[in-house]
Amino acid sequence: MKYFPTPDEKIRLSEVNRAVEAAFSEHGLGNVQMPPKVYVTFPHGDFRTMPAYLPAQHIAGVKVVNVHPANPKRDLPTVMSLTIILDVDTGRPEAILNSTRLTDLRTGAGGAVAAKYLSPKKDVTLGLIGSGRQAAAQVEAIALELNVTGVRVWSRREEHSEAICKRFPGLDCKAVSIEKACDCDILVTTTPSRNPIVMNEWIHEGMHINAIGADAPGKEELDPAILRRALVFVDDPAQAVHSGEINVPVSRGLYSPGEIAGTLGEVVLGKKRRNSKDQITVFDSTGLGIQDLAIADIAMRDAESIDLPFP
Amino acid sequence: MKYFPTPDEKIRLSEVNRAVEAAFSEHGLGNVQMPPKVYVTFPHGDFRTMPAYLPAQHIAGVKVVNVHPANPKRDLPTVMSLTIILDVDTGRPEAILNSTRLTDLRTGAGGAVAAKYLSPKKDVTLGLIGSGRQAAAQVEAIALELNVTGVRVWSRREEHSEAICKRFPGLDCKAVSIEKACDCDILVTTTPSRNPIVMNEWIHEGMHINAIGADAPGKEELDPAILRRALVFVDDPAQAVHSGEINVPVSRGLYSPGEIAGTLGEVVLGKKRRNSKDQITVFDSTGLGIQDLAIADIAMRDAESIDLPFP
Repeated sequence: MKYFPTPDEKIRLSEVNRAVEAAFSEHGLGNVQMPPKVYVTFPHGDFRTMPAYLPAQHIAGVKVVNVHPANPKRDLPTVMSLTIILDVDTGRPEAILNSTRLTDLRTGAGGAVAAKYLSPKKDVTLGLIGSGRQAAAQVEAIALELNVTGVRVWSRREEHSEAICKRFPGLDCKAVSIEKACDCDILVTTTPSRNPIVMNEWIHEGMHINAIGADAPGKEELDPAILRRALVFVDDPAQAVHSGEINVPVSRGLYSPGEIAGTLGEVVLGKKRRNSKDQITVFDSTGLGIQDLAIADIAMRDAESIDLPFP
Repeated sequence: MKYFPTPDEKIRLSEVNRAVEAAFSEHGLGNVQMPPKVYVTFPHGDFRTMPAYLPAQHIAGVKVVNVHPANPKRDLPTVMSLTIILDVDTGRPEAILNSTRLTDLRTGAGGAVAAKYLSPKKDVTLGLIGSGRQAAAQVEAIALELNVTGVRVWSRREEHSEAICKRFPGLDCKAVSIEKACDCDILVTTTPSRNPIVMNEWIHEGMHINAIGADAPGKEELDPAILRRALVFVDDPAQAVHSGEINVPVSRGLYSPGEIAGTLGEVVLGKKRRNSKDQITVFDSTGLGIQDLAIADIAMRDAESIDLPFP
């Protein structure tokens, strides 16, 4: 059994995007096993368990990931993660990966795949609502699929917006107001908000939105009126209803699961798509265990590992 | 983060029994979080994911455990397991345990707790149906709670029955027919059977049965008529209906979940009990994530570990 402490170090993001795209395709074909993620809640956070099996890659395993919002005060990341990989044929644990950074990368790749298929334009301006690790991962991954001509960032603290712009010196990146950040081709929301912060009137026709931040019951970032105007695609319907961007509107009767336009897997397969360049599309991302397996599969190829005795 | 390759080496079984008993008590009080275990199935086996949180011990984590029946042909155990322990306050992964052997021990302890509370006698003969690791763990753990005056073992292969008897030279242990093994005070079934192999007519009044083997949909060891005659206690009702001894009878309409007499947690708390010494009692064990946390908590105290870099 191997332990991979830094499995992201040598990873190529273009390869990650393709692997995650292939995983969504398998999901769209119904060729995966992936029970909805399971939540356990603590007084000051929670953890989620995500078992999955991706037969096309002959890989299976479980990601365990926490969310503790007060961690930065203790100099710890809010989100940390381990992934266990099991041998499909024998069930033997083959590897354990530190998947904290891989989680950002695979979520970024999911957003990039959504943007690739759902954006009506190839030359795009990005608007970022939130400026943390997830926002940076989205920019990096999307920039591999589309020609990003500018980035406009809003964060509760302007210095955070400026910090993320410094990471992308090659892009025209500026800190702006939330309303101005929404005036873009592709909007990416990555905040932990529990109330809508992106208003319907700021959203124009032809936009695509990656709604990333809502990943637990009670979280939402978008004015529910946006969902009613848009075609909403999800990664997994059960997870989206339980904990994605649509979870609060569904629980309040403002949005019905029957209105979901389709899954990203169906979009990748060409079974579902935007119908006109003027439509608004939303990708409601909750994160799939098969994305974690797809990226682990790549990461283990080149990363350094420590041998551990097992059994 | 620490890795414990052999966390069972220095463990004291009497301590395990008490810790597991305390965990059942917390379960009976409703003081735990433990979503039902999640199954992922492979062509030649499966794996289960068991997240849990035991606030009384301030411990949380996830056990991952496979079942691959053909593994012995490859010189691998059928069942192997890892457990991840997370810090409750920060969600940081604190430890990873090789929990293959701990799984046997905690299941043994669960059976011992059930026998302690549900056996009407203190001096008992044990009957074993099945003679593998689980059977041995049951004998060891039960012998700490009750005075075992004899062990009668049936296994499909008589040399296996003789092998387990050699492990217990201090006990009067003999290989016998299945019918004779059932003529005992406490019967322990630990086979992977998918059809009843213990017949109703072999079971007499006043017996207690630990039904351990059935741990997945489709598995059963007891003639359903036994369940109708007995008071059936479960570790967790949802898991028992899904994958315990009662799963097949429930799915065929031969047993109703409403007939369950109670949980082992309620028994430990004294809320539920056998009503007379002539009743037959059954403990339907599926295995609880909180049992795994309780034993991990003890194991980590004394076992040797390897330091791993994280994050």
